[in-house]
Amino acid sequence: MSDTSSNQMWGGRFAAGPDAIMEAINASIGYDQRMAAQDIAGSRAHAAMLAAQGIITDSDANTIREGLLTVLSEIDSGTFEFSTALEDIHMNVEARLKALIGEPAGRLHTGRSRNDQVATDFRLWVRDQLDAAEKGLLALISALVDQAEAGADWVMPGFTHLQTAQPVTWGHHMMAYVEMFARDLSRVRDARVRMNESPLGAAALAGTGFPIDRHMTAEALGFDRPMANSLDAVSSRDFAIEFLSVASISAMHLSRFAEELVIWSSAQFRFVTLSDRFSTGSSIMPQKKNPDAAELIRAKIGRIFGANVALMMVMKGLPLAYSKDMQEDKEQVFDAADNWMLAMAAMEGMVKDMTGNRASLEEAASAGFSTATDLADWLVRETGLPFRDAHHVTGALVALAESKGCDLPDLSLEDMQAQNSAITDGIFDVLTVHKSVASRTSYGGTAPAQVRAQVARWKEVLK
Amino acid sequence: MSDTSSNQMWGGRFAAGPDAIMEAINASIGYDQRMAAQDIAGSRAHAAMLAAQGIITDSDANTIREGLLTVLSEIDSGTFEFSTALEDIHMNVEARLKALIGEPAGRLHTGRSRNDQVATDFRLWVRDQLDAAEKGLLALISALVDQAEAGADWVMPGFTHLQTAQPVTWGHHMMAYVEMFARDLSRVRDARVRMNESPLGAAALAGTGFPIDRHMTAEALGFDRPMANSLDAVSSRDFAIEFLSVASISAMHLSRFAEELVIWSSAQFRFVTLSDRFSTGSSIMPQKKNPDAAELIRAKIGRIFGANVALMMVMKGLPLAYSKDMQEDKEQVFDAADNWMLAMAAMEGMVKDMTGNRASLEEAASAGFSTATDLADWLVRETGLPFRDAHHVTGALVALAESKGCDLPDLSLEDMQAQNSAITDGIFDVLTVHKSVASRTSYGGTAPAQVRAQVARWKEVLK
Amino acid sequence: MSDTSSNQMWGGRFAAGPDAIMEAINASIGYDQRMAAQDIAGSRAHAAMLAAQGIITDSDANTIREGLLTVLSEIDSGTFEFSTALEDIHMNVEARLKALIGEPAGRLHTGRSRNDQVATDFRLWVRDQLDAAEKGLLALISALVDQAEAGADWVMPGFTHLQTAQPVTWGHHMMAYVEMFARDLSRVRDARVRMNESPLGAAALAGTGFPIDRHMTAEALGFDRPMANSLDAVSSRDFAIEFLSVASISAMHLSRFAEELVIWSSAQFRFVTLSDRFSTGSSIMPQKKNPDAAELIRAKIGRIFGANVALMMVMKGLPLAYSKDMQEDKEQVFDAADNWMLAMAAMEGMVKDMTGNRASLEEAASAGFSTATDLADWLVRETGLPFRDAHHVTGALVALAESKGCDLPDLSLEDMQAQNSAITDGIFDVLTVHKSVASRTSYGGTAPAQVRAQVARWKEVLK
Amino acid sequence: MSDTSSNQMWGGRFAAGPDAIMEAINASIGYDQRMAAQDIAGSRAHAAMLAAQGIITDSDANTIREGLLTVLSEIDSGTFEFSTALEDIHMNVEARLKALIGEPAGRLHTGRSRNDQVATDFRLWVRDQLDAAEKGLLALISALVDQAEAGADWVMPGFTHLQTAQPVTWGHHMMAYVEMFARDLSRVRDARVRMNESPLGAAALAGTGFPIDRHMTAEALGFDRPMANSLDAVSSRDFAIEFLSVASISAMHLSRFAEELVIWSSAQFRFVTLSDRFSTGSSIMPQKKNPDAAELIRAKIGRIFGANVALMMVMKGLPLAYSKDMQEDKEQVFDAADNWMLAMAAMEGMVKDMTGNRASLEEAASAGFSTATDLADWLVRETGLPFRDAHHVTGALVALAESKGCDLPDLSLEDMQAQNSAITDGIFDVLTVHKSVASRTSYGGTAPAQVRAQVARWKEVLK
Repeated sequence: MSDTSSNQMWGGRFAAGPDAIMEAINASIGYDQRMAAQDIAGSRAHAAMLAAQGIITDSDANTIREGLLTVLSEIDSGTFEFSTALEDIHMNVEARLKALIGEPAGRLHTGRSRNDQVATDFRLWVRDQLDAAEKGLLALISALVDQAEAGADWVMPGFTHLQTAQPVTWGHHMMAYVEMFARDLSRVRDARVRMNESPLGAAALAGTGFPIDRHMTAEALGFDRPMANSLDAVSSRDFAIEFLSVASISAMHLSRFAEELVIWSSAQFRFVTLSDRFSTGSSIMPQKKNPDAAELIRAKIGRIFGANVALMMVMKGLPLAYSKDMQEDKEQVFDAADNWMLAMAAMEGMVKDMTGNRASLEEAASAGFSTATDLADWLVRETGLPFRDAHHVTGALVALAESKGCDLPDLSLEDMQAQNSAITDGIFDVLTVHKSVASRTSYGGTAPAQVRAQVARWKEVLK
Repeated sequence: MSDTSSNQMWGGRFAAGPDAIMEAINASIGYDQRMAAQDIAGSRAHAAMLAAQGIITDSDANTIREGLLTVLSEIDSGTFEFSTALEDIHMNVEARLKALIGEPAGRLHTGRSRNDQVATDFRLWVRDQLDAAEKGLLALISALVDQAEAGADWVMPGFTHLQTAQPVTWGHHMMAYVEMFARDLSRVRDARVRMNESPLGAAALAGTGFPIDRHMTAEALGFDRPMANSLDAVSSRDFAIEFLSVASISAMHLSRFAEELVIWSSAQFRFVTLSDRFSTGSSIMPQKKNPDAAELIRAKIGRIFGANVALMMVMKGLPLAYSKDMQEDKEQVFDAADNWMLAMAAMEGMVKDMTGNRASLEEAASAGFSTATDLADWLVRETGLPFRDAHHVTGALVALAESKGCDLPDLSLEDMQAQNSAITDGIFDVLTVHKSVASRTSYGGTAPAQVRAQVARWKEVLK
Repeated sequence: MSDTSSNQMWGGRFAAGPDAIMEAINASIGYDQRMAAQDIAGSRAHAAMLAAQGIITDSDANTIREGLLTVLSEIDSGTFEFSTALEDIHMNVEARLKALIGEPAGRLHTGRSRNDQVATDFRLWVRDQLDAAEKGLLALISALVDQAEAGADWVMPGFTHLQTAQPVTWGHHMMAYVEMFARDLSRVRDARVRMNESPLGAAALAGTGFPIDRHMTAEALGFDRPMANSLDAVSSRDFAIEFLSVASISAMHLSRFAEELVIWSSAQFRFVTLSDRFSTGSSIMPQKKNPDAAELIRAKIGRIFGANVALMMVMKGLPLAYSKDMQEDKEQVFDAADNWMLAMAAMEGMVKDMTGNRASLEEAASAGFSTATDLADWLVRETGLPFRDAHHVTGALVALAESKGCDLPDLSLEDMQAQNSAITDGIFDVLTVHKSVASRTSYGGTAPAQVRAQVARWKEVLK
Repeated sequence: MSDTSSNQMWGGRFAAGPDAIMEAINASIGYDQRMAAQDIAGSRAHAAMLAAQGIITDSDANTIREGLLTVLSEIDSGTFEFSTALEDIHMNVEARLKALIGEPAGRLHTGRSRNDQVATDFRLWVRDQLDAAEKGLLALISALVDQAEAGADWVMPGFTHLQTAQPVTWGHHMMAYVEMFARDLSRVRDARVRMNESPLGAAALAGTGFPIDRHMTAEALGFDRPMANSLDAVSSRDFAIEFLSVASISAMHLSRFAEELVIWSSAQFRFVTLSDRFSTGSSIMPQKKNPDAAELIRAKIGRIFGANVALMMVMKGLPLAYSKDMQEDKEQVFDAADNWMLAMAAMEGMVKDMTGNRASLEEAASAGFSTATDLADWLVRETGLPFRDAHHVTGALVALAESKGCDLPDLSLEDMQAQNSAITDGIFDVLTVHKSVASRTSYGGTAPAQVRAQVARWKEVLK
């Protein structure tokens, strides 16, 4: 990019010419060719507007617009030859257009500059990624909702500190991630609304004296409106950083689930069996399945958030308007977007394929006196004991069970009444893990009924 | 925090007891006391709900609610003695409440746990910061709009690469930052909507069997609704990371403006004079004014984004539900919030106080043939020359002016016509910087009329 | 800080005076008072040198040096009153010195400035932390070596992908961390050598015309030499960033071990029992032990590396020489150092206290055909089968064992010979986990003999 | 990578087979082919050792070693066809070797695994980069020393807060960066010593029972010794993070200098003229030179430190030994290394080509009473006035000069004596900028003599 008029045209003036180092550090065509479709869409909209405003003729505009379609088809078919000497996608496209249609190509750049052109291209590219992310998140949510529905009443340990705390349902655990990815989706949508403004027509930085119609090009490109300040339009990259922030938070959620899948796949947990499709095995230990995809998803937050750091650092303390530093924005966003999409798709695939090991889950949930809290709550609810006193009684009963080598439901009523005479056999209604989870019917609680209600709500949303 | 029931009550069981290292690494009361007001508001809402649902008596609820007000007034007046042995703000408040009101204090914790309690407190705290940030951003925007209005037609250089590219107006430059901070504001508002859900009643992680009314406590605390999944409610900190992301992007904008103020304050630029209030001087070089506040604002992005990195790293790969790692969330958010608020306030103060040096700005804008683009645009517009050819003619005229040691408007019509015979004296209408900026009337352009339109739009918003 | 002469002395000139915001953003005394001892040591060395060089009288120097000791004792005893109006530790000490000894205090600042003063103070402070880190790492290594020695021949699973791959020894696993922390130690020592140069005497930035002896003050303060360039001396903070980088890498190692301890403490693994001292429990689930200290250590990398990000961001693109931005360096380094030291101490305590559960470890090691690789290696070694063919035979035998529901050593020789007739009963020498680990005697391998050799080497180092 | 035996050989067992997503997330051949030379060097050393130890025959070893050279020449000449189905560089090379030499290829993998193989390859690759960085830093230092020598006595402003504080010399400023890059070099060398240990022979993680000689392969590959713990050898990536930390600090120094070059190139400063080679121009504003290379260098810290963040995040909390997450290490290091080398080369080129504008520098140095500190120092030194009083007198004289519109050397002796009668005309010896810098002869000071001494010292080092 750089400012409106700098390009190889200045080559004549510079006796020395850019050498290999400068070319290596300066050229962007190696990566910005990914924005070819966006660049051509922007130019076609610009040409149509120039004609509508009488700045160029309809004939020139048509020639330009047709020529650009030809360029695009060449790029799509792989026959286009990108030139590093032409530095970037804009000059590559323009040079080819000139070769195809001659003089009218020279009129296309009227009333715009490479600064607003690249800002437009990049915004369109990022917007496409936000749309793709929306799809990816919805697909992942859908896979999780299906898992939740299938296991709405499967019991598993609810952990704090990776120690069993209380039993929960498999469906409830799946739906927790649905909520997280739903917030990611909400962030994607907010970001899209905020960034959907057109920089086109900001020209180099000051706007232009040509009677252009920025609302027309904005509309043609699907933007909600033109950006209100031309300096801001060419200088700002907060839309790209917001994209990276949103992707990073989502990658954090993915990494948390991936960590669980790795732990759950261990021989010690055996909570879940991943499909062959998303695992690798060992030629000599056939029972072994390495959760490679989960590990790689867990790792992806590194490069996605690393990109966030990178671009934040580039933009830190950068004066207005365009500085060449900003050319570093694209590779970071490209790489982060690719890896976020890949991680979502891989996670969706794993979730669809994976099998919860119901027996292992339930066995683990039942260990460790996981219904002790239910016992204490029953004491408060049914006998009116203050909460802190109820805890004391519960502790004594757990200690008793531990000394007897049995679980809480295995204690006799007499044993219990010896601790607190108000206890009745109604207490046994809450001491098994299934009764425990069934009882937690507070809104958003783990009871199967609550889970099914949330599943139903989401199915409606996903329809 | 840690899970619902862990606290010093387990001290009896642990023969060894936590020693100094453990206390140092474990206790949070040193910082989480900042959430005292939120903690007490949450407890008061919870108590009222427990009574309304018949879980505790109205009398107990009233006693608890009054007692909590007493605790709050003790904290506000500085007479409350915080105890590290009681670990955190929740236990400190509860212990004091018990000392004040006795047994009913033990009923307060019914149907909740420290996990949802701290999640509620922290969410309320962050929500308050979002509200404060909204105020801070609006005040800063207002100060910028005032500067823009005052200098809507002052001419200054528009830079690319810190090289003069085209003249712009002071007002236009100020309004560019208005747009940036307005997007920050928009992010603040979106974040507030998204995070304004109540975790209270999620209990330890599974919900509760008590017939609590989570909608009632949510409403009492100003939340839009209860969170829909109890595991998610106690496990998620994306709302805090989103706060840090939003603050970081805003700090990036602040750092860009601060960088400009530092450069503009240099003896070489002299574009702006900062007030004594936000500068420091030298006892022996009285003309010297160090832009300390601008430099410190420029630096603040470091700690704010550092906090973002820190919390992202803490949450990376953390399995559900509550893990003690999450206790590290608060200091990062507290520090980032404090410094963001401070940086906004300092920037607002500097903007209000600063004086643009109109003469220096205009002189700089006029140097360097900054209207060359206007000349080229005129050629395209008035003579129909293709854009690329117009550039060639312009280059020749600039070279001529450079060789004569004059500026473009100082060339004679003959000189110009020698390059291109179609040139008329209409060309002089665009060659001065004032005419240049006046001509850039495209939407969002730098023309004073455009700037004034944007100022008017913002004044309406800020009313 | 700021440049040499700026301080409240300019207050007279500035009619407005710094208001609350400016004071809040500008004053550093709230945290830089932690460098009081370093500040006073630096001033005492400077005064002695000024007298030795005849720049001030011996009498003045003695008065200053005694007065500074008095100030230090006031600070140590907590009777010193720090003043925010005096901004920083340097002015606080100097003002108090003047109150104590009068006019000679005014001669102390000859030939130096606040810029080199703060650079010296901070370097001394960081050097102290490097020394403390060396001690902390050695203590942690020592605790690990003790664990390794005690369990040199305990067998446990060696994991890849958190799946059992091959049996290893407990001692070997502990010694892996010894190697990591040893490299951390090596980085600490390299950093100390590199940063141990004195900035004192660089003055504001240009050096001084007073005939000072920078080598003398360097030596007095334990520096190896004065820094060779005065601009560099006051501008550079790479020593602080290197400290943060070293601390971050070490925190990464701590987080990895902490993660293992959390997983190993789960009911599913039960590989290790942490002491009560570094855990918290539940009042109602007495068997539960939350690995709080391990979780908090795991989290500490967040704030330590966050500080690294913060300071890197502050220094990015900062022109020479001193800029006020650099005042943000200290809080980051203070916090990171405190938390690194705390995390090391907590980890050392946990390692000393923890108990490896030998039976669980061995049982886990034996599961999953973990000696399959040994079987394959035996085939290569003893029968000359190419490696890839040996894997094929092994795979078939594992499949056979799996179908029989037995482990590899439980297969009969006939079963084995049916797959490959060259197999002899020598094969049973490698199929148990103890024999497996004993056989891995390559340098650095997991054989108890190798582990004991490494333990012995380290005991020599630690002596 | 993944563990020793996982590769497409397990394909037969997995009915489903890896689909496109899994291949996309799992395959590394797209980037790890950059380690082909290292991979082959490692395999050749391994084969030679296997033969020397009698594990394979000399004939097999020779066949393998020759075959590997053939593979390498195919890769070097571009005729090698990389296969994504073979996942990584190791399997690609091994498969081609088998095609070339048949059965002996199957013996190469004896006593090693992909885990130690990739660790070895990557370490060798990073070591090569450290060697390249050493060269790059020395070349850059050399260019700076040449600039320093040429302008040892050119006077320019020494800035604090981007405000002129005291005059310094151009040579002194250049030598400040020499010191910074010299510390970067020192870090490179320390990192190289620390990481130069061989993981080869660690096998999957536990070492091996084959009688391998790890010292022999270590020596053959130029390592100082084998790593002492096999688990550590395959699990650790601190050497890669240290590389990124060192690169990041160096990139920070580059960004600081780049920022100065951008500011110095502005029309307002005009301190330096960059060569055409490292600038871009404008077709219509021929006097304009955009410092593109400097801006891009300034930006490079983003992606380099972003890579540091990324890998730190990947490794955070990763249990031993190999996890697939670690496959994300290479792309980050590759990209950071490429960009660091490029930034150093571009900076070296710019420094060699750039022209300091002596007249502009000196004019700027003389403005703003930049010798006021010299005046104050003279008063202290020559009249015995305490430092703080001297400042007061100086302030008055500066105010006088300001009111007269002249500079300090232009004041008459009478004017001066009116402020302090002890002033003699000796004072004029320090009031010009040339005399000011000449007087600052303290070690490391800005006096030309000091600068030339440092230049001489460095020329000796660089010889």
